[in-house]
Amino acid sequence: MAINLQIPNHENIFPVNGVRIGVTSAGIKKTDKNDLTIFAFEKDTNVSGVFTKNLFCAAPVQICKKHLFEKNAILALIINTGIANSCTGIKGINDALEICKSLAHLMNINLHSILPFSTGVILENLPTEKIINSIPNAIKNLNSDQWYNAANSIMTTDTLPKIYSNRLKINEKIITFTGISKGAGMIMPNMATMLSFICTDAGIDKLLLNRMTEKIANKSFNRITVDGDTSTNDSFIIAATGKSNIFINSENDKYYNDIYKELENAAIDLATKIIRDAEGATKFITVKVNGAKEEYIAKKIGYSIANSPLVKTAFFASDPNLGRIVSAIGQTCIDNLDINKIKIWIGNYLIFENNQRSKFYDEKIAKEIMNQDEIDITINLNDGIYDEIIYTCDLSNEYIDINANYRS
Amino acid sequence: MAINLQIPNHENIFPVNGVRIGVTSAGIKKTDKNDLTIFAFEKDTNVSGVFTKNLFCAAPVQICKKHLFEKNAILALIINTGIANSCTGIKGINDALEICKSLAHLMNINLHSILPFSTGVILENLPTEKIINSIPNAIKNLNSDQWYNAANSIMTTDTLPKIYSNRLKINEKIITFTGISKGAGMIMPNMATMLSFICTDAGIDKLLLNRMTEKIANKSFNRITVDGDTSTNDSFIIAATGKSNIFINSENDKYYNDIYKELENAAIDLATKIIRDAEGATKFITVKVNGAKEEYIAKKIGYSIANSPLVKTAFFASDPNLGRIVSAIGQTCIDNLDINKIKIWIGNYLIFENNQRSKFYDEKIAKEIMNQDEIDITINLNDGIYDEIIYTCDLSNEYIDINANYRS
Repeated sequence: MAINLQIPNHENIFPVNGVRIGVTSAGIKKTDKNDLTIFAFEKDTNVSGVFTKNLFCAAPVQICKKHLFEKNAILALIINTGIANSCTGIKGINDALEICKSLAHLMNINLHSILPFSTGVILENLPTEKIINSIPNAIKNLNSDQWYNAANSIMTTDTLPKIYSNRLKINEKIITFTGISKGAGMIMPNMATMLSFICTDAGIDKLLLNRMTEKIANKSFNRITVDGDTSTNDSFIIAATGKSNIFINSENDKYYNDIYKELENAAIDLATKIIRDAEGATKFITVKVNGAKEEYIAKKIGYSIANSPLVKTAFFASDPNLGRIVSAIGQTCIDNLDINKIKIWIGNYLIFENNQRSKFYDEKIAKEIMNQDEIDITINLNDGIYDEIIYTCDLSNEYIDINANYRS
Repeated sequence: MAINLQIPNHENIFPVNGVRIGVTSAGIKKTDKNDLTIFAFEKDTNVSGVFTKNLFCAAPVQICKKHLFEKNAILALIINTGIANSCTGIKGINDALEICKSLAHLMNINLHSILPFSTGVILENLPTEKIINSIPNAIKNLNSDQWYNAANSIMTTDTLPKIYSNRLKINEKIITFTGISKGAGMIMPNMATMLSFICTDAGIDKLLLNRMTEKIANKSFNRITVDGDTSTNDSFIIAATGKSNIFINSENDKYYNDIYKELENAAIDLATKIIRDAEGATKFITVKVNGAKEEYIAKKIGYSIANSPLVKTAFFASDPNLGRIVSAIGQTCIDNLDINKIKIWIGNYLIFENNQRSKFYDEKIAKEIMNQDEIDITINLNDGIYDEIIYTCDLSNEYIDINANYRS
């Protein structure tokens, strides 16, 4: 069902120097699929993260934030799927710490150098013993070429694994960027029910990496939405091992732009792959809001359209019921917005201006565009310099089926 | 499909002294069902209204606001269904004015004493000539006992008519309150794709009626949501004819409380009837948020739960996947909310406290409650004195079907 989601061939998934991955089944998922993943980084790797802003952020998210805040050197990640370990009180924290402790012991590293991640059902407790018993298996198969297996292992309702991999030649040296992500519902900024891990063997100063991760999240994982719901477990991690011997320390560095751009590409690719494989999605929709007086206005209008069930069902039906887009803009109730200046396109086709349907509007052409599986909606507010892009999908019966039956 | 929606028997729908209604078919709806409704008020009737805050408010809404703002005596309403006359530019305004002009001429009243209303598809132009040609028919059957027909005539995707009627004895005199409303999608405060008209033969001072209408809207039509989308045409009107010879002029008036309470009851009844008949709804859900530090916090949390597609699909499936309620509270990102003080009940059953599932939680009991067709969710924030109630419904496959096929 996923919309044009490209999975790179195995020979195009490039290992990242300084990163090893181990996967195994801890028996959390109902089938015997892999559901436990470990990342091991060589020392001197810098790691940054951006996390959900949900007030009930899950136990592992609380521990991640603490370990990163304490400026520990991060040497390993441990990720389970199936249960989110969210809203589980003190027991949840203790369970996550137990798991970290066990991994720390087996890898002979400090508990505080580990970041734990969970994704799945909220309110349930982790099967901590099962997970701890499976860690040795995951450690046993730690290897640099496990990216494909890891992308599969972190999936919940995802139908396909999400992998990005690319190489960049800088100063005669090759830098590698490889990452994975998972969705697939409860997806809205701040961030989605999503996990994403991007690794590079570029060397990036820790504080610089923090700034880059924040900025990149706001162009990628914080600009996607499936249903407007924000999960308790969202986490986005960038790890830079430095093993390529190319280092950057500030935004003024010669190689900064190339490396930033490549990391941003990776994040947008992995974020939009989540949308392409969103629960029940049949269309990939890009909402571009241009010419806003302020950034928040472009974002607010973009999300109002992207989260409108009526807009989404019209796209599902390929029905150019385009008044729903206009209404979704209007319901933002933004002050002092001159609605007479607003223009709206689907694809490159102008459908609305001067507060009415375009004079040249032809339902047949609109219908043809609505029939495509990738559609751009462009709004020009003609009111300023701020542009935003939000990625979303349609709303189908399958979304209802998946979410009505998720636990059963 | 509507959930426990009671339609009063004909003998319990009481005419309102001073109000006559005419209905006819103007051929806007695809079938030959009635789609044009006229209300005629005797002179000295006071009329107040609350309208959508959508920036693209429809042409008839713009005219209503103007005519009310100019403090004209309002003597008639004209309502068409099928086409919303929204985002139709100058032509839309002229069409609505043409219709008012024609009605004014035939009823021998001033154009400015008429309020027009439209509901249906956005962006399309009204079949103005058809409507004008049908006005004489509607005028011909003006009568005090047409409430049931009017309730049917204003329906769009509604499956049942929505009518409230009651009588109150004050000072040996009978006061009547009768009203109608329509939904059924694009329903969210500010207000819903809804029209509602409540009439009483109580006499209410014009400025007092304005205040009462605003206050009542905030307890009823501004506290319901189906899908979080706000339409361009929402309108809520109260007309007070004074024919009962009971008059109130201020909040201190002896009969104020009785009359206010009865009008509020009528509005809550008609608002919740919209939810009971919401597109695809199988469950009627009341979200009560108590103990908030500020009013907006209670409202924000209530709407975050009520609009969450994941909460709504869990209710559709009768699945106590209650972490979704917790997550919907958390995603409001409200500052300084102590999540450890929050308690959550479904029905009277405590399911969450101390940031974890209640110790006594039993999935079987939760499942039984989720199986009911009317369910209360109660949140106590234990943080202040503000309470809010939001009415909503679940999200089903039928919602998708209805909205994917609305225009076809």
